[in-house]
Amino acid sequence: PDWEVVELDGELQLRRVFTFANFAEALAFANRVGDLAEAEGHHPALLVEWGKVTARWWTHKIGGLHRNDFIMAARTDALAAG
Amino acid sequence: PDWEVVELDGELQLRRVFTFANFAEALAFANRVGDLAEAEGHHPALLVEWGKVTARWWTHKIGGLHRNDFIMAARTDALAAG
Repeated sequence: PDWEVVELDGELQLRRVFTFANFAEALAFANRVGDLAEAEGHHPALLVEWGKVTARWWTHKIGGLHRNDFIMAARTDALAAG
Repeated sequence: PDWEVVELDGELQLRRVFTFANFAEALAFANRVGDLAEAEGHHPALLVEWGKVTARWWTHKIGGLHRNDFIMAARTDALAAG
């Protein structure tokens, strides 16, 4: 719902900010997303700060967005909701 | 050794990039830094990507760098070396 398409370093990416009560909860979420990434062999950029995680998904190999990035974004949403 | 002083959103920050063999090792390092942050009650920004973590320390309350940020940077180095 709240994913934006942004261009960073010349590559289109999906980006969303997830908010949390503190740093530890933000980092815990990053770990859940990291587990998903390992399971799928596709990795995001995760910026962990106090109370928030900014997630970005894209496919470096094609220099932009693949259908799989949208799937990973949706699965990231599910982790945030779960 | 490799910390730079950068200005982001009008605030001076210490920034260093740490490199790793893969995403999982980068995330594991972020967790070690997160544990340190929790123990000290002072929190960085940690950008986790495949094979690297970009760490930033600063003190938002004063809008820049406090002595403690340099201490946390040195302790982050120690975690990377350990």
